[in-house]
Amino acid sequence: MAVVSIFGSACASSRSRPDGAFATRPAQALVLMTDFGLADGAVSAMKGVARDTAPSVSIFDLTHEIPPYNIWEAAYRLSQTYSYWPVGTVFVSVVDPGVGSERNSVAVKTKSGHIFVGPDNGLMTFIADQAGIEVITAIDETKQRLKGSEESYTFHGRDLYVYVGARLAAGLVTVEQLGRAHGQLVRLPYQKADLEGGVLRGNIPVLDPNYGNVWTNVSKNFFSSTFKDAKTVRVRIPKVGFDQVLQVAATFAGVPRGQPLVYFNSLLNVSIALNQGDFAKKYKVKSGPDWQVLISAN
Amino acid sequence: MAVVSIFGSACASSRSRPDGAFATRPAQALVLMTDFGLADGAVSAMKGVARDTAPSVSIFDLTHEIPPYNIWEAAYRLSQTYSYWPVGTVFVSVVDPGVGSERNSVAVKTKSGHIFVGPDNGLMTFIADQAGIEVITAIDETKQRLKGSEESYTFHGRDLYVYVGARLAAGLVTVEQLGRAHGQLVRLPYQKADLEGGVLRGNIPVLDPNYGNVWTNVSKNFFSSTFKDAKTVRVRIPKVGFDQVLQVAATFAGVPRGQPLVYFNSLLNVSIALNQGDFAKKYKVKSGPDWQVLISAN
Amino acid sequence: MAVVSIFGSACASSRSRPDGAFATRPAQALVLMTDFGLADGAVSAMKGVARDTAPSVSIFDLTHEIPPYNIWEAAYRLSQTYSYWPVGTVFVSVVDPGVGSERNSVAVKTKSGHIFVGPDNGLMTFIADQAGIEVITAIDETKQRLKGSEESYTFHGRDLYVYVGARLAAGLVTVEQLGRAHGQLVRLPYQKADLEGGVLRGNIPVLDPNYGNVWTNVSKNFFSSTFKDAKTVRVRIPKVGFDQVLQVAATFAGVPRGQPLVYFNSLLNVSIALNQGDFAKKYKVKSGPDWQVLISAN
Repeated sequence: MAVVSIFGSACASSRSRPDGAFATRPAQALVLMTDFGLADGAVSAMKGVARDTAPSVSIFDLTHEIPPYNIWEAAYRLSQTYSYWPVGTVFVSVVDPGVGSERNSVAVKTKSGHIFVGPDNGLMTFIADQAGIEVITAIDETKQRLKGSEESYTFHGRDLYVYVGARLAAGLVTVEQLGRAHGQLVRLPYQKADLEGGVLRGNIPVLDPNYGNVWTNVSKNFFSSTFKDAKTVRVRIPKVGFDQVLQVAATFAGVPRGQPLVYFNSLLNVSIALNQGDFAKKYKVKSGPDWQVLISAN
Repeated sequence: MAVVSIFGSACASSRSRPDGAFATRPAQALVLMTDFGLADGAVSAMKGVARDTAPSVSIFDLTHEIPPYNIWEAAYRLSQTYSYWPVGTVFVSVVDPGVGSERNSVAVKTKSGHIFVGPDNGLMTFIADQAGIEVITAIDETKQRLKGSEESYTFHGRDLYVYVGARLAAGLVTVEQLGRAHGQLVRLPYQKADLEGGVLRGNIPVLDPNYGNVWTNVSKNFFSSTFKDAKTVRVRIPKVGFDQVLQVAATFAGVPRGQPLVYFNSLLNVSIALNQGDFAKKYKVKSGPDWQVLISAN
Repeated sequence: MAVVSIFGSACASSRSRPDGAFATRPAQALVLMTDFGLADGAVSAMKGVARDTAPSVSIFDLTHEIPPYNIWEAAYRLSQTYSYWPVGTVFVSVVDPGVGSERNSVAVKTKSGHIFVGPDNGLMTFIADQAGIEVITAIDETKQRLKGSEESYTFHGRDLYVYVGARLAAGLVTVEQLGRAHGQLVRLPYQKADLEGGVLRGNIPVLDPNYGNVWTNVSKNFFSSTFKDAKTVRVRIPKVGFDQVLQVAATFAGVPRGQPLVYFNSLLNVSIALNQGDFAKKYKVKSGPDWQVLISAN
């Protein structure tokens, strides 16, 4: 009973396995993110590989609804969620327009103790900034792959990444053992929040898709140290010509229904919304590296 | 080995944990329902919190496709599914337009032995009627929350409800220990099925979304005791002027393809469909508290 | 501790259960596929039944987005994924337009060692061809069903199939014990790949829905033995009048962005795509038994 009881894990990985492999610690969660959707069998094939490779590992989804090839949004989704998962959780990310080209496959361990596996195409941009990089390994694709998958070139998610991720989560291999040390990750360029001439400049990385709220990369701390306890601020979104003075409210219920507000979202970043409405739709706001927001005292 | 073997549970919660907390029974399932969709990271962040809080708990989804802010439909989904889950299962429901306002957060234990956690905004209306209330606790939001989430006001699903739900499922806390006893739950008004002048009156709580079948809250038992073994009945849906005599059939295959029928759905309630067609679309029927159905002998 | 450690399974089924039933081997994975979508509570009710019936079983999804009543596509999804799951995995498939009619309910064990449960309506067409049939049992629907579900006629997924599937996965029953031996499965007619007068003829079973790639049932081996190392081939899709000479490329990155190519998909079948574009949409290609593709030397 030692394994289950001592570690308090739902499904501790076994200490000895019929195949002779040994795990050195309890199994970690394996979290999958792709742009595959769930309509076909691709994600299920990945989970089958994980289950077959490491039956002790619990498998979860981050999302599979990343817009096809949208590395930017995928990178953001990792940064939005990883810190809520236990230290040691393994994230497998497959948004991979360059599959089959010369891009590297990497496994990354962050200073926060989380592990990320996927193509080196910018997916780990925000993670690197937020969690800090401890180890980067370029995965040896000839050895670290599902047996029998050598002829398959177009589905590294199934043939390489989830196989590697499941083995990492089960403790059957370490990040360092997967290949050679890798220097720099590919990074997406993006505007960090800054203050210039009294104007807080930031970026709109994503929208809150169901509700149409606009999220920025300006933290509550940065905002509050700049504008103190301002009850209103001027908000501009140049791409759509939006320019209004908005109320700063702790919650949506702090303004009348249908009214716009500045609030701090669940990641404690400055965000813009209509109370029980769709701000993004009303003002045609979208997100991405080229969407700028300007905030100033009014 | 006692825990796993005696209880026959996939993932019994450990009897002792590294953090010194003690669970008093095997881990129960944790079932999540939201209106967040799965496109962003919100549900994944919730699951991360659950996993981090109580690794022994198995996490499931009811649905995350509740239309935004639709408390009515969410309430119905709970009532449609809870009884198929084991006694002791913990349901965390987050459809929460009033997050940040003065509405209470509650944990409810029903006479059926199921547990429900969420905002007190009507979500538990049907559950209360069907399963019966045994205990209601108003959750102490200052104490019963994810550590470090004190400044976050807009995502109680992650910061409060799933944290509390995971601890309940793991047996680390009881409903009674979460706060103070709470009097009455907020209830949504709705028309219960009744009989007046030979006309069975009922409500259309939801549609069967993929197939366009129209579900009512009139039970098979009520229908059968009223109309005995009638082979046909007159069905009226006043909002759209529908008024036809329909065949009563045990299965869709009991009428020709494309023909309408009255049948008893999987919850053994009176329902209306086109065999291999979309009744709701054809007759522009929708659902909600104001959708009435009238059934009478023809 | 023997159970968990010896078998190395995340969640071994218990050796003795409070209800007196005995499992004879560790729990297998249970994989669900339906055309229900995830918006209502149907899939959740099924999972509740599985959890209540066999708490030791880990439950996974293949997909629940099969287009309503599309047995063909469901059959294909099974064939696309089953081989990536461990031997012994139990698949429950519910695409069931004939529920309540005279069609049989079957459990099938393949020569590959996988188990399939569902209506006998063609769902197992491709599985039968690819994995080979070892045992077919017509399920005794009066005995092998959820207790208390006798009056329910329209939801065999919940009342019969997932109940049976969970018991199979937990080792509480065998395929042979479920009813009487069954002769032939219902099969969907479909065009197998063949070669006639130098023209490789095949079928388009499905599209890769997110990316608009067109998949065929012509294997890489068949293609390569016919055309050797051809760098280009002539591809015709008669239903839409498509007739072009396309480049054969190992990966999408092998042709310029927006250009069409022939490649081998993740199942090592001939497929057609636009690099970073949507081939199916551009040329109005769909899939199904009547979609033919012709490939010849140019």
